[in-house]
Amino acid sequence: MIEPFDDTYFMKKAMQEAEVAYEQGEIPIGAIVVVNNQIIARAHNLTETLNDVTAHAEMQAITAAANFLGGKYLIDCTLYVTIEPCQMCAGALFWSQLSRVVYGARDEQRGCIAMGTKLHPKTKMEGGVLSAEASQLLKQFFIEKRNLN
Amino acid sequence: MIEPFDDTYFMKKAMQEAEVAYEQGEIPIGAIVVVNNQIIARAHNLTETLNDVTAHAEMQAITAAANFLGGKYLIDCTLYVTIEPCQMCAGALFWSQLSRVVYGARDEQRGCIAMGTKLHPKTKMEGGVLSAEASQLLKQFFIEKRNLN
Repeated sequence: MIEPFDDTYFMKKAMQEAEVAYEQGEIPIGAIVVVNNQIIARAHNLTETLNDVTAHAEMQAITAAANFLGGKYLIDCTLYVTIEPCQMCAGALFWSQLSRVVYGARDEQRGCIAMGTKLHPKTKMEGGVLSAEASQLLKQFFIEKRNLN
Repeated sequence: MIEPFDDTYFMKKAMQEAEVAYEQGEIPIGAIVVVNNQIIARAHNLTETLNDVTAHAEMQAITAAANFLGGKYLIDCTLYVTIEPCQMCAGALFWSQLSRVVYGARDEQRGCIAMGTKLHPKTKMEGGVLSAEASQLLKQFFIEKRNLN
């Protein structure tokens, strides 16, 4: 049976958010939250626009999803994010108790795996979905930034 | 020489924020951000009111301080928080690159020390300022919660 709503489908939606960030001069990372195959939150990094280090895509997606659901726990939700979450975002995901995190590319230096951040025991994390696309967009962003400066 | 603006002075201001949280039925944790002996941000935990696990006192204080300063890095700032920051908040503090974190009481279970969260190399962290008062307020809150339920 063909499953139209698979991880690749949803990661493409997160990638679209990353592309919006890119066009705005933001580090291009996007995130969405899904419950029962429905997207309930879409967000992208806004740290430059908001002048706020806490405005990562995941943080805004968590806040927006809780707002949609009317409760602060994201028990049956999956978060798709184009780059592996950092300590802050993984820490927020811990508190949200969501079921599943799917990331695109690893962040070998500042990602939660390298940093040893703990997720909630209820949360499963997987990676590698559209990894090449996600890391390519990020690389392209930093190459352009360097050339502009 | 008497220094009126010492760590105890500023922690009392953070405790006042924790007390506001307490009165609102929020887990009583308060935080302030100080630069050159001036308080530039005051915040308390609002996770219940905002239905948002990311609404910790420190997160809001970081956002408010950056807003006040007009830049997202809190290089010369000190954050006073009544309870040791969690993974999420320590992760946010990492990104903010602030100079100093002073906390009141340890959080032996969910605090950033037990969880192994990394602060920025530029950031120094100290604790134990008004520790007894901060943990007493927290204990009292949970005793009352239990008695109400």
